[in-house]
Order: sequence, then C-alpha cells, then structure tokens
Amino acid sequence: MEMTSLSNVSVLKFGGTSVKNLARIAHVCQIIDTARKAGPVLVVVSAMGDTTDYLIKLATQVSHTPDQRELDLLLSTGEQISITLVTMMLKSMGIKARSYTAYQVGIFTESVHSKARIVDINTDSLHKAFAENEVAVVAGFQGVTTEGDITTLGRGGSDTTAVALSAAIGARYCDIYTDVDGIFTADPNVVAGARRLTEVSYDEVVEMARLGAQVIHPRAVELARQYKVTLRVRNTFKPDDPGTTIDGGKNMEIYRSVSGVAIDKDQSVVAIMDVPDRPGIAGAIMRALAEKNIVIDMIMQSYQPKLGLNNITFTVSQADLDQTISLLTAQKEELGASIVEADPDIAKVSLIGAGMAHQPGIAARLFTILGDASINIKMIATSEMNLTCVISKVDAEKAVRIIHEAFELDKV
Amino acid sequence: MEMTSLSNVSVLKFGGTSVKNLARIAHVCQIIDTARKAGPVLVVVSAMGDTTDYLIKLATQVSHTPDQRELDLLLSTGEQISITLVTMMLKSMGIKARSYTAYQVGIFTESVHSKARIVDINTDSLHKAFAENEVAVVAGFQGVTTEGDITTLGRGGSDTTAVALSAAIGARYCDIYTDVDGIFTADPNVVAGARRLTEVSYDEVVEMARLGAQVIHPRAVELARQYKVTLRVRNTFKPDDPGTTIDGGKNMEIYRSVSGVAIDKDQSVVAIMDVPDRPGIAGAIMRALAEKNIVIDMIMQSYQPKLGLNNITFTVSQADLDQTISLLTAQKEELGASIVEADPDIAKVSLIGAGMAHQPGIAARLFTILGDASINIKMIATSEMNLTCVISKVDAEKAVRIIHEAFELDKV
Repeated sequence: MEMTSLSNVSVLKFGGTSVKNLARIAHVCQIIDTARKAGPVLVVVSAMGDTTDYLIKLATQVSHTPDQRELDLLLSTGEQISITLVTMMLKSMGIKARSYTAYQVGIFTESVHSKARIVDINTDSLHKAFAENEVAVVAGFQGVTTEGDITTLGRGGSDTTAVALSAAIGARYCDIYTDVDGIFTADPNVVAGARRLTEVSYDEVVEMARLGAQVIHPRAVELARQYKVTLRVRNTFKPDDPGTTIDGGKNMEIYRSVSGVAIDKDQSVVAIMDVPDRPGIAGAIMRALAEKNIVIDMIMQSYQPKLGLNNITFTVSQADLDQTISLLTAQKEELGASIVEADPDIAKVSLIGAGMAHQPGIAARLFTILGDASINIKMIATSEMNLTCVISKVDAEKAVRIIHEAFELDKV
Repeated sequence: MEMTSLSNVSVLKFGGTSVKNLARIAHVCQIIDTARKAGPVLVVVSAMGDTTDYLIKLATQVSHTPDQRELDLLLSTGEQISITLVTMMLKSMGIKARSYTAYQVGIFTESVHSKARIVDINTDSLHKAFAENEVAVVAGFQGVTTEGDITTLGRGGSDTTAVALSAAIGARYCDIYTDVDGIFTADPNVVAGARRLTEVSYDEVVEMARLGAQVIHPRAVELARQYKVTLRVRNTFKPDDPGTTIDGGKNMEIYRSVSGVAIDKDQSVVAIMDVPDRPGIAGAIMRALAEKNIVIDMIMQSYQPKLGLNNITFTVSQADLDQTISLLTAQKEELGASIVEADPDIAKVSLIGAGMAHQPGIAARLFTILGDASINIKMIATSEMNLTCVISKVDAEKAVRIIHEAFELDKV
C-alpha cells in the first residue's frame, strides 16, 4: 500500500450501533452532510447492529465448523446492505453518493479467510468519486483476493478498513464514530470516576485496546501509527464533541506516566504441563496454533530443572479455546507433555502508560494494592507500556476500581 | 453468449420457497447429492423465502424511489446469502462445492438497473469447478456490468440465470425446482379438475407464463427456446416426480389444440382518450414508457373518424401503474389528449394452445361461454397461440373454471 500525499479528504467510520436502524442511518447522514462542507468525504460503515452475529449464528446452524470461504462471503452481505442504505439515504437528501464493496474499490487482501490482512488498495475509483463531488460509501470489514474471493478482516475489521483507506488516500483525519465519548482512563461502566482523555498516543491506545478496552481495534491503531493517520474517536450521538484524538503523542511524557486501566474478560488460560526441556518444543506448539490463526496473548514458561520439564502457560480468546484444547490434546503425546489444562474464569487487568517502564515503583504499588484487597494474582506480564495481571474473573471489576482510585486516574 | 456443445452437466435451479429455511436447504442438498451421481452439477438459487420483498421494503422506507444502482446491490445480498448456506451445507455433507456470485462467474449484463439483460457469460471458472468435481452454486437474479456494478435481472430473474448458464455450458437439462408439480391446464387452486401436462412446448409455456401462470418466468422460457435448452419444471418436495418437460414440442399438433387457461390479476387497463389522429403519436407515448422500462402488454387503438381522434388503451402491471399515470398526465397536453384513465380492477383470462390460430371456432365458443355466464368482456386480443379477454377482476376465477370445463381440459 502506497501512501499518497496528504489530501483534504475526511474519512468517517460508523460502527454497527451507529447504523443499527434507519433512524440512526438518517442521523449518520446528517453528520456526513456537515462533514462534506469541509471537503471530500469517504464513509466506511459496519453491518447494521447485530447483523454479523446473526449471520454467524445462521452459519453455525448449518455446520459447527462452517466453510471459511463461504462464511466470509456470507458475512460480507452485512456491510453490503448498510452501504446501500446509507447511500440511498444520502441520495434521497440530494447528496451525490455512491457505494463501494471491497471488490468494487479494490481492497486486496491475502488469501486467508476470516482474518485476512490488507495488502493493497486501488484508489482510482475513490479519487474519481471525489473529483465528481460524490460521497464514497465503502463497506468495512471486507476485502477481496486477487483471485476474486471475498475475505473478511476479522472482528473490528471496519476500523482497519477506515485506517487503511485513510492511509491510501492521505486523509486529513480518520474519525471513528462510535457510541461512547472517546477513550477513557477506565471503563466508565465499571469506574464512576473514569475520565475521558482528549489526546492519547498510538502506543497507549494499542496497549489499551489489546488489553480489552473495546473502543477501537488495536490492528487499526497500529496501522494508523505506521502510516501516521490522525484518528479521532467520537460519539455519533454528540457530533459537536471533539472526542479523543489519537496521534504521535508529542506531549505525552510531560503529563502522565499512567494513562488508564483496562480489563479483558474474553481470555482463558491454557497450561501444558511437564513438557520435556528440548529445543523447539515451544515453537512447535505455537506454530500449530498459528496455522489455525489462533492468536496467543500472554505466554510464559516455567522450568523445573530437576525433572527436566517445563510448564508452558498462555492465554487465548474464549472463541479459540475449544480449538486450542483439541489441537494440543491431539499433540500431547507427540510433545511428551502430561496434561493440558484450561481456566476460562479469568480476567486480565492492565495498567497502561507510556512512561511506566521507567518508573519501577509502579509495579510494586500495583501488586500491593491488589494484595491489600485480597485479590490473588495468577500471572504477571510486563512490557514497555503496560503491567498486566491475570486474576479471577469475579475480582475483575473491583480490581479496576481500586487501581483507578489508587493511581488517581480521575484527576488530570 | 456462445453456446458450447452439449455437455453432461445438469443445471438445478431452486426458488425461494425451496430454500426458505435451513431444513429446506438440507432437503435441497439431498436432491443435489442425487443429481451429482449422474455427472457434474450446477446449482442456481434464489434468495431465501421473502428476503427480496423484505429488502425492497427496507429500501422504500429510506426513499419512495430508492436509487436503482444501490437497490440492485442491496437485493443481490439475498442470493449471496443463500449460495453460501447451500455450499456450507453441501461441504458439511462431505460434498465438494463452491459458491459464485455473478461477478465471480462473470455473468455480464447491460448497464441497466433492476431489469438488466444478460449479455455474456464467462464459463471458465465453472468448467474448472466441474473438472475438479465441485458442485458450482451460483447466485441467481444478479449480474455485473463490465464496469463492475451489480445489476439484477428483474423478478423471476433466477430462472433466466439458470437457463442462460444452461445454454452457456450446453447443459443436458435445466431443472426448475419449485413448489408445484409442473405446468397445469389451469391453476389447480382455482380449477379442481386442472391436469398436469407431462410435456409442453416452449411457445405454449411462454404464452401461459406471460399471461399469468406463475410457474416459470417467460423470459427464461424464451431464452430456453432460443438456445434449445430442455427445461423440466419439478416439485422440490417430490424429487422422484418427473414434472413437466418443456421442449420444442414435436408431438404437439397431434394431441391438443387448446392446452390450458391462464389468469393474470396483476394488470391494469390504462386509457388515453381523444388523442389527435397524427402519425407518431402512439410511438411517442410508448417510447416515453419504454424509457422508464415500463412493459406494456395488450395495446389497442380505436378510431373515431368523424372527430379525427383516437383512444389508445393498453395494460401495464400494477407495480408500474402509478408511474405510467404520472408520465402520461405530464404529457397529456403535449399529446393533445383529453383524459388519462386507469382501471386496476381487471383480470386477463387467456386460452392457450398451439393449434388455436387455425381453428376459428374456438374464439366463438369462448365468447359464447363467457356471455352465457353473464361475464362482460372489456377487451379482446388474439395471437397465433392465445385468445385473451379482459374482464372484471371479480369474475376472473369463475371464468377460468367454466372455460376449463367447457373445453374439457381435465380430459387427456
């Protein structure tokens, strides 16, 4: 994907809740109408409301493991429906507009189903639309292979579509319209004092998103960081509110070392016990999972030197748990491992901040806070920008509240 | 479209009622599984149940006159959903299969929305599927322009897709699976003694279908006649029943002069009164309607020589009535006409038979039968193969019953 020079195009992405019925689509079209007064507009839309979930349910009624190529073609109808309705509505308001599926634009992906990555975008038709003063309404979440097969980009893929298109056309802004006011120091539904951030860096958002703050997909933010696309997370129902701007975070260091606390209840712990201490074993396990496109998150290995055995522990999303267990159980003997165990009743609680790595006292404070509240820590992982603890799922919300308070995240 | 030499491929087309839920799709897949034992199979499917009507309703909630390009892209999702579910089901049964949208096959149409005609079909991907022993599951009703826009073929378009594909690959048979046993001498819901025909000619079916016997779309039968595709109309729920075979009708002349009676309640009469008797007037009116893709059916002109004025009367489908009236009303002064009138409460009753034109007594018998039953005839039209009367809608079913009985259509 080549990045063209910065144009005056605005990219507006609307999620499923923003287009869940015709009244909401009418509201979204008002926002588009306002935006187009400032220059050409490209709109990316998700499927209406719960359409994608409904279609997945339909497919799994046909087969527990529906064919992935067919599933992608099925799911792509969700966005195909919403682009046509948004475009019809714009045209009925007298606004020039035109819808585009992924193959009509030329959003080319690798030949992988359900989690394809974008390889190239042909911007010819979009530039033609802008030149003709037409709003281009593009289907999110979908792509096409060079062989003409429809692919999907995985959950949250519409955010990725919007950022990739922004990069390809050099958009001024990529506005991600959603049903919240922006990015908060913690989930406002859990922590009453959670504060909306007005500006945040790509790195911090990637950490927050990856760790479960479900405002914007981390892949999309990573892509935005790579192509320097300025993102704005805005509330569809408060179109005058500026939301949270996500960019390089030039002023970051001066104003905070801890920017938020995130919670992720969608993970499960998987443990493979008593694996022989032989080179290449961990790699073989991870390769088998990678081949099925199963993303593993935290991974750690503990060594029992006297026995010459390792325990390998990692987390996977709940959706991938069954497949992970059956894959590993099938390989257990080959690996020489004794037991494969899973614990789905866990949560990951993470403290995020760009300045954290250079302040070792923060980890000590975090562990003390949790210990004082009698919350047992099962696993710990750290990176440049986050400190993550795996705890019992029942303790998750309490943990977030006490951490938010103790680190004074409610104060600027 | 070139016709290739006759292959051993069977084409099976399943309408909306045959795939309206997953249980029915499973049943359809059993029929496909049986068919593939005799050679390669190409399947054409319609949208599930009332999906198309639902999508049209959604679009008209956005706008009374939804953009036609967007509407076609919206409607095409209906068949896109059914091809993926049928293919998933086949694969879950261990049958190699692959779905194809119109653009994936390359079913090219003219650049007209909502009623596009097929121009060319690229059979490369289908031949590849057959060579790989894969069932090809193709979306009916849709096409693509050379510019990549999605078009639809109009109501009944899936039949047309099936016949066009049959012609392009030189299929042995094109089986049209539906929810009735075949083609009858009259609607069995109206006439208790209606008899199923085992063989019928293209010409007779075109007349029957055009005149309202809603078993198979007349466009599809015309295409089948042109490319000599043998059609079989079969009941999805009686897969062992041979249904009605539609072909050149070689034995036609010997076995009947009257083959059926059809009824069409979807027409309205439109009359333009007192049009000046000037060359080109009728052409101007018809051109204006043709530009909006409004199909006019029966047309007649009566002349009042003393006044130098004509009355032009024709029928259009109920769906086109409002637009026809507003078009003609706008042109009334320009045409010099005095009144535009419409009567939606009519029905067309038609007697169909290949041998009819050469037996003048049939018309006299028909008019006598209707007159004896006190049914007033408003318009009469005849052709080589049919005799049509426009009567009041309230008399329609009674008329069909008495005609069916009087012409002894219940007897072989």
